[in-house]
Amino acid sequence: MIKVSIAGGTGYTAGELLRILIHHPQVQIESVVSTTSVGVSLSSVHRDLLGETDLNFSDSIGSPDVLFLCLGHGISQKFLQKNDIPAKCKIIDLGNDFRLEPTFQNRTFVYGLCEQNKEAIKKADNIANPGCFATGILLALLPLANMKELKNEIHIHAITGSTGAGKKPGETTHFSYRDSNMSVYKAFDHQHLGEIKKTLSLDQAVSVPEIQFVPMRGDFTRGIFASVYTKWNGNMSDEEVITYYKDYYKDSPFVFVSDDNISLKEVVNTNKVLLHISFHNAYIHITSIIDNLTKGASGQAVQNMNLMCGFEETEGLHLKGSAF
Amino acid sequence: MIKVSIAGGTGYTAGELLRILIHHPQVQIESVVSTTSVGVSLSSVHRDLLGETDLNFSDSIGSPDVLFLCLGHGISQKFLQKNDIPAKCKIIDLGNDFRLEPTFQNRTFVYGLCEQNKEAIKKADNIANPGCFATGILLALLPLANMKELKNEIHIHAITGSTGAGKKPGETTHFSYRDSNMSVYKAFDHQHLGEIKKTLSLDQAVSVPEIQFVPMRGDFTRGIFASVYTKWNGNMSDEEVITYYKDYYKDSPFVFVSDDNISLKEVVNTNKVLLHISFHNAYIHITSIIDNLTKGASGQAVQNMNLMCGFEETEGLHLKGSAF
Amino acid sequence: MIKVSIAGGTGYTAGELLRILIHHPQVQIESVVSTTSVGVSLSSVHRDLLGETDLNFSDSIGSPDVLFLCLGHGISQKFLQKNDIPAKCKIIDLGNDFRLEPTFQNRTFVYGLCEQNKEAIKKADNIANPGCFATGILLALLPLANMKELKNEIHIHAITGSTGAGKKPGETTHFSYRDSNMSVYKAFDHQHLGEIKKTLSLDQAVSVPEIQFVPMRGDFTRGIFASVYTKWNGNMSDEEVITYYKDYYKDSPFVFVSDDNISLKEVVNTNKVLLHISFHNAYIHITSIIDNLTKGASGQAVQNMNLMCGFEETEGLHLKGSAF
Amino acid sequence: MIKVSIAGGTGYTAGELLRILIHHPQVQIESVVSTTSVGVSLSSVHRDLLGETDLNFSDSIGSPDVLFLCLGHGISQKFLQKNDIPAKCKIIDLGNDFRLEPTFQNRTFVYGLCEQNKEAIKKADNIANPGCFATGILLALLPLANMKELKNEIHIHAITGSTGAGKKPGETTHFSYRDSNMSVYKAFDHQHLGEIKKTLSLDQAVSVPEIQFVPMRGDFTRGIFASVYTKWNGNMSDEEVITYYKDYYKDSPFVFVSDDNISLKEVVNTNKVLLHISFHNAYIHITSIIDNLTKGASGQAVQNMNLMCGFEETEGLHLKGSAF
Repeated sequence: MIKVSIAGGTGYTAGELLRILIHHPQVQIESVVSTTSVGVSLSSVHRDLLGETDLNFSDSIGSPDVLFLCLGHGISQKFLQKNDIPAKCKIIDLGNDFRLEPTFQNRTFVYGLCEQNKEAIKKADNIANPGCFATGILLALLPLANMKELKNEIHIHAITGSTGAGKKPGETTHFSYRDSNMSVYKAFDHQHLGEIKKTLSLDQAVSVPEIQFVPMRGDFTRGIFASVYTKWNGNMSDEEVITYYKDYYKDSPFVFVSDDNISLKEVVNTNKVLLHISFHNAYIHITSIIDNLTKGASGQAVQNMNLMCGFEETEGLHLKGSAF
Repeated sequence: MIKVSIAGGTGYTAGELLRILIHHPQVQIESVVSTTSVGVSLSSVHRDLLGETDLNFSDSIGSPDVLFLCLGHGISQKFLQKNDIPAKCKIIDLGNDFRLEPTFQNRTFVYGLCEQNKEAIKKADNIANPGCFATGILLALLPLANMKELKNEIHIHAITGSTGAGKKPGETTHFSYRDSNMSVYKAFDHQHLGEIKKTLSLDQAVSVPEIQFVPMRGDFTRGIFASVYTKWNGNMSDEEVITYYKDYYKDSPFVFVSDDNISLKEVVNTNKVLLHISFHNAYIHITSIIDNLTKGASGQAVQNMNLMCGFEETEGLHLKGSAF
Repeated sequence: MIKVSIAGGTGYTAGELLRILIHHPQVQIESVVSTTSVGVSLSSVHRDLLGETDLNFSDSIGSPDVLFLCLGHGISQKFLQKNDIPAKCKIIDLGNDFRLEPTFQNRTFVYGLCEQNKEAIKKADNIANPGCFATGILLALLPLANMKELKNEIHIHAITGSTGAGKKPGETTHFSYRDSNMSVYKAFDHQHLGEIKKTLSLDQAVSVPEIQFVPMRGDFTRGIFASVYTKWNGNMSDEEVITYYKDYYKDSPFVFVSDDNISLKEVVNTNKVLLHISFHNAYIHITSIIDNLTKGASGQAVQNMNLMCGFEETEGLHLKGSAF
Repeated sequence: MIKVSIAGGTGYTAGELLRILIHHPQVQIESVVSTTSVGVSLSSVHRDLLGETDLNFSDSIGSPDVLFLCLGHGISQKFLQKNDIPAKCKIIDLGNDFRLEPTFQNRTFVYGLCEQNKEAIKKADNIANPGCFATGILLALLPLANMKELKNEIHIHAITGSTGAGKKPGETTHFSYRDSNMSVYKAFDHQHLGEIKKTLSLDQAVSVPEIQFVPMRGDFTRGIFASVYTKWNGNMSDEEVITYYKDYYKDSPFVFVSDDNISLKEVVNTNKVLLHISFHNAYIHITSIIDNLTKGASGQAVQNMNLMCGFEETEGLHLKGSAF
């Protein structure tokens, strides 16, 4: 049994962490910190938690074994500068402050993509939890990098749910705008490209090819659907490639290769990743689906915690999918 | 050909007015006023108007024949106090400032429910355009009032689309909240009850019965679905009542009584109203559907303009429904 | 550890049962029967189960301790006539065959509304699992019945998600029809009225008043939002009534009374029920929300199984809500 | 004034044609043919037409000046074989029977992409109306073909609304499946690739490059969002390319180039096409949006009719967008 605290407790990823941690058999919630809602009940902000917890928001992290940072991008650094976190307290940062620049103060942050980095994570004291798009895209491409066949330009379209844009309401998350709508943003220039390229480069000696990535806003709340293709000129057969993928993920309890086409809701509200692989016109086409709030954020953070703390990787993450 | 101007030009009802007026054969748009966007093109705010108009927002109404006020509730009065509108300029107010208190300055506002008040509207110089819920509910009940059979308590649930809540984003119009969600607000206490009761009382000598009205937020953008029932102890047969409804609306070009059950999208993006009437357990049950932005706001405003200006009541309002 | 089987394994409620039972610590799945898909993997039909189970559909129930019937209404009887189920095998029927007529063959079916009938359920061998609308509405009204204050006519509108209509595609579950749409069906005449009235009558000596119930189809997949009101002329204060509700459900681990307004997604994908109570115009107004597939069907079935088998009532039902 | 008839009158594209033609000032509807609903009112099938027309479905086309074929793919040929259509009756086929094989019986079908083929359409007696994906994609690419700069591989993801899949309900148009979902289908192999390649090849002497096209199912009813990119190594500046696009479409009353990012609902329920062009990583990226039922089918069919019959190209097509 460990004690965990959360900083930035009123946002979407904190709420999702709470939904998971409340039922985690090895975890006791020590403190949920908010700068704006101290003294207020968690369930008055995360309304679905009514009946699940009597905790209130606090202004202090207490003395946790693990601290989750659910702060906006750029704010995690400031938080660590301002607060004196004991060295023995493990930190899992859900923002992007330490994904590319892993050293800060006396801490070194390990990139928390469990499927690629499991041994390092088990020994880590600090984790930079991957971005949601990065997670979905990397899991589509890592086996190709691993077989040294990621040699050609990569083409990606990925559509995200609205929860990826956070809690603060704005023009593109207004229901009247977003419902039944579709749009592109940050085309060819999304900030997750950095961690995607860095991570792929670790897995293959040669340099990572160009990546063309068009992110889109979908009219659903949860999930990322990534469609990824690149020229295939390896000498494995189609079936051998699919087998390679299955082998690559055989010790990854949340990643599965589907022989049939996949649709987003097959993973929504779970920590699972589904991949489907097909071959056309000399291209390999990989579709990849995750829930952006679970595997793309808070679920993966718990998965990292499990590995760091010596628990079963899946502990507390046997989540019933919503399916519909 | 008349000249019209719009005050409050960046909001949803102004945008919808523009979508209709741009194609109205008798109308020339004189000016669209905004306090925040002067000099900016209309289509940069109402993005779907790209290619339909080259107008910019202005800081002056110019000299229109008809002025539409698309201001927030309570702001129309302030606007008239601050701006000197020529007496000969007709005014159609889409807010609720003059629905219950029709006299202001030297102007008297006629309640603009065309189906009930057509002759007065034809002679009016100023119109208080009805509220969206009020429109849907009144059109369900007016024939009963007219036959003096509105004697018993009235029970109403009505579900509205998100555009009824306006453009400013907030918690209950956040896509992540609203999508696939359902909630009640202002139960038994909605501000449209005033104009509903006042209007019904005009049509029957006896007093209006109690009205229990539960408004709900639906997870769609356009439309109001009202389900209305009241004890029926009149001495007409069911068929006679339905015939009475059809007769009552025979000169109303936008209101139709359906013999079959109705579903909201049968009127979305049109100025139409569909009613369906059935009898159960000694109750008469009327379902009523409108598009809150057209018949519930801007379409009805144009209908009023048509009547006031001597045009065909349906001019510019032959709108293709979206149906899906 | 018990063995359970499911008949009617390809439908929505069977899929939802599997999503729950797969992670239930006291359950082993013995057999999932289908007449159409024998030999096919469960995950080829319930696609989100990929990676969670390797089972195939079977043509035999095997020898389970508990058998769930997930058959269409009217088919459970036929199934029991055709198949010889050992007397010691407990049966939980998710259809409506035994809710009003509890005796069949040598079996007597106990109405499985756990919050009202817990002691009988604990001793039961056969359960008639309540209907989804009935569950949401009964939990709103039972405390009033219990205090003998259910004396006046009851007015209900309740909106259901599309999964309530089952898997077979049809006109009103076609996405092009249902999306952003709203409609009424079976107004004043829904088949769940029977079990609602029967259940309420058990809890109060006097007769149950008239119930006016308008069911609606919502454009979401999961959940029921019920808005219920009835004249309040008891002599408790508003606060005393609310306290009575909270006391009534204090031993019900899934039912909570919210002091704030509630919205449907606060319970979606959980077995929870939230109620909110307010008073207006001499009426008591209760809003009630459930997930139709979990608390309204398969979750409640597992809750019944837990009680019948002596497990914790909440075992396997600590479900993470989707919240968004 | 011309007389028009519709064969295949109960489907989605026929309904949409009727919504447009009913208000077309130059058109009188002669007959709407159905094999299944003869004698039944149009509005009992296309429910939103209640109050707009009193016509019934017929078993004969009568003697129209223009006949629209709204039949399933492959059925138009059979219809022409079975029915003796007078030579002077113009035909507009909304299916794909004559897009690639334009000659049938004594008729030659002109490809009805008005923006590319206007002069031929004006003289045509028979039109093969383009496919919906083809329309959105071709309008994104034609200016590049026209400037002979379509030399490099083309990458396309395009997401379609559910109405593209027609009226017959099925697994992937079931609301419980489609709502909040996303999926890929016919990846790299969609049947519209044929007409896309054929049409592009007409506009540039050199051969059309490879096209990689991934179609997706979106969870909205109307619209196609296409994201298209190809290597740009022409010697125009970015601004010159954008100007070239605007010039290319200057006589096309429905196509507009937006300087800002576009979102799907800016064209829904209209016959408009919006394009947005940007440059990244040596690629030109074009996003293109249409409504699949109007510009992608029935609206374009009316546009073709207008051109063939000497009417204004926009007659009857000044459609109010739904915008929300």
